[in-house]
Amino acid sequence: MKNQNDKKQRTTVSIYGQQYTIVGHEDPAHVKEVIRHVDEQMREIKRKNPYLDATRLAVLVAVNAASQYKKLEQEVHSDQPHSEEK
Amino acid sequence: MKNQNDKKQRTTVSIYGQQYTIVGHEDPAHVKEVIRHVDEQMREIKRKNPYLDATRLAVLVAVNAASQYKKLEQEVHSDQPHSEEK
Repeated sequence: MKNQNDKKQRTTVSIYGQQYTIVGHEDPAHVKEVIRHVDEQMREIKRKNPYLDATRLAVLVAVNAASQYKKLEQEVHSDQPHSEEK
Repeated sequence: MKNQNDKKQRTTVSIYGQQYTIVGHEDPAHVKEVIRHVDEQMREIKRKNPYLDATRLAVLVAVNAASQYKKLEQEVHSDQPHSEEK
């Protein structure tokens, strides 16, 4: 599954109309999925809040993604699939 | 652990020098942790890339957070703690 290649991938992507070069060891399919998610989220928040500028949209997407990550991380770390009720 | 209160929390926070009102059912401690993470990440990327504007910083933090989330999600969904070798 993992890309064991030591070479860093350079991928040029477009997010909310701006070009970004993403550098890293990530699987290009993963990068594409992440980029699409961020781009879509920014556009969705913009539809609901047309007065927000690009910085605020991006910050809100960052907050949402970081929140999701931290919640999932906590779930995983406190993983008790069949918690006992006492 | 969960805030079972049905009332939405309104929390005013500062991220990279701008004020945001976060509305939701989240635990305020969780919100604070997430906000601090996003704010710190933006400042850290700025230190390494002083030419980046706030929108680009926020987009990059969003991309990183979404990437972390999607990787962890995949790990959890393909969770086979003791996969059998056959």
